[in-house]
Amino acid sequence: MLELFFAKQSVALASHIALEEAGVEFAAKELSFGNSDQLSADYLAVNSKGRVPALVTPDGILTETPAILTYIAQSVPDASLAPLDDPFAFAKLQEFMAFMVSTLHVAHAHRFRGYRWVDASDEASLTAMKNKVPETMTAAFRYVEDEVFAGPYVMGASFSVADPYLFTCARWMAADGVNPAEFPKIAAHREMMEARPAVQKTLKSYAT
Amino acid sequence: MLELFFAKQSVALASHIALEEAGVEFAAKELSFGNSDQLSADYLAVNSKGRVPALVTPDGILTETPAILTYIAQSVPDASLAPLDDPFAFAKLQEFMAFMVSTLHVAHAHRFRGYRWVDASDEASLTAMKNKVPETMTAAFRYVEDEVFAGPYVMGASFSVADPYLFTCARWMAADGVNPAEFPKIAAHREMMEARPAVQKTLKSYAT
Repeated sequence: MLELFFAKQSVALASHIALEEAGVEFAAKELSFGNSDQLSADYLAVNSKGRVPALVTPDGILTETPAILTYIAQSVPDASLAPLDDPFAFAKLQEFMAFMVSTLHVAHAHRFRGYRWVDASDEASLTAMKNKVPETMTAAFRYVEDEVFAGPYVMGASFSVADPYLFTCARWMAADGVNPAEFPKIAAHREMMEARPAVQKTLKSYAT
Repeated sequence: MLELFFAKQSVALASHIALEEAGVEFAAKELSFGNSDQLSADYLAVNSKGRVPALVTPDGILTETPAILTYIAQSVPDASLAPLDDPFAFAKLQEFMAFMVSTLHVAHAHRFRGYRWVDASDEASLTAMKNKVPETMTAAFRYVEDEVFAGPYVMGASFSVADPYLFTCARWMAADGVNPAEFPKIAAHREMMEARPAVQKTLKSYAT
């Protein structure tokens, strides 16, 4: 059986929802970032990067949200979670996920994980990074709202793994200093997503 | 015909080599970062993010290296540039590309593009970011060398789009303060790649 390692308030929520939407059996294994579970020897043996999500499959372990979402879509084709027979549409989905992982999520990480890119003792630089987050996150969501979002789902008429990915990151808006009212399409999408049974079921594991 | 927008000393090299390896006809359109061509109105109409690569296809425009590489592999299946019939192996390729775009390339960008994450006038923070690059890039290549690289190609026995991606980023090592001698597998891979006709042909467009 598949096993998903997740933590509350993490991007693992996207993969978690996708597994529910796919209708496959899986075991959800919770890590506590508060306890630094992700840095335990046991977990580093699963994912040496010390991050979530990680998906244990019968063939081996997968990390990185775009890879896990692609795997779920491809290994459960009947769930129709990606345009598997259209190389261009499939690449557009990959383009969205690459933007999310490399630009939007990276901008977000500069709020509390700036020590990845400057020395952890350099308080001034860490603060400077944090101060820029509202601007960079607003720009990232602006791009998604104006140039990616096709509606009613991220990629257009069909639900795909892009939807839980956007939904997960859109939940960061307020804390990152982004005004949700400036992004009506993303706000409507979030509301639509919250009405889905798979989302409601998954969110129970993320209640804090 | 496909059109690839590229710039010297950019990650577009990976997509450029992949197109050559695929054996498809394409037009290569060079932008000069020195002239800020990537910020011209004409180019922003192609890619509003003002970055390269961008690939113009008969179906529309693609950006983001992992998406372009996936598109090339899927739309030219006879070139065997990805494990298209194996969801797990395909996801491992996506995992590698997600790491490259979100961790390795992002670490690299903190050397000269720190203004993405702090105010452009904040010289002290920009310097602090730059000073951390040898450490973060060394850690990123360490992960690739020890935990990803299967050999002789990145993903194992078969050449894939992961190979031009690693090759392209490995060329940044010395400038980023990484000692290539600490990474013998990546060094051997680079040498092997430089012997490929498609690589030699493509590098002519990147000579500075």
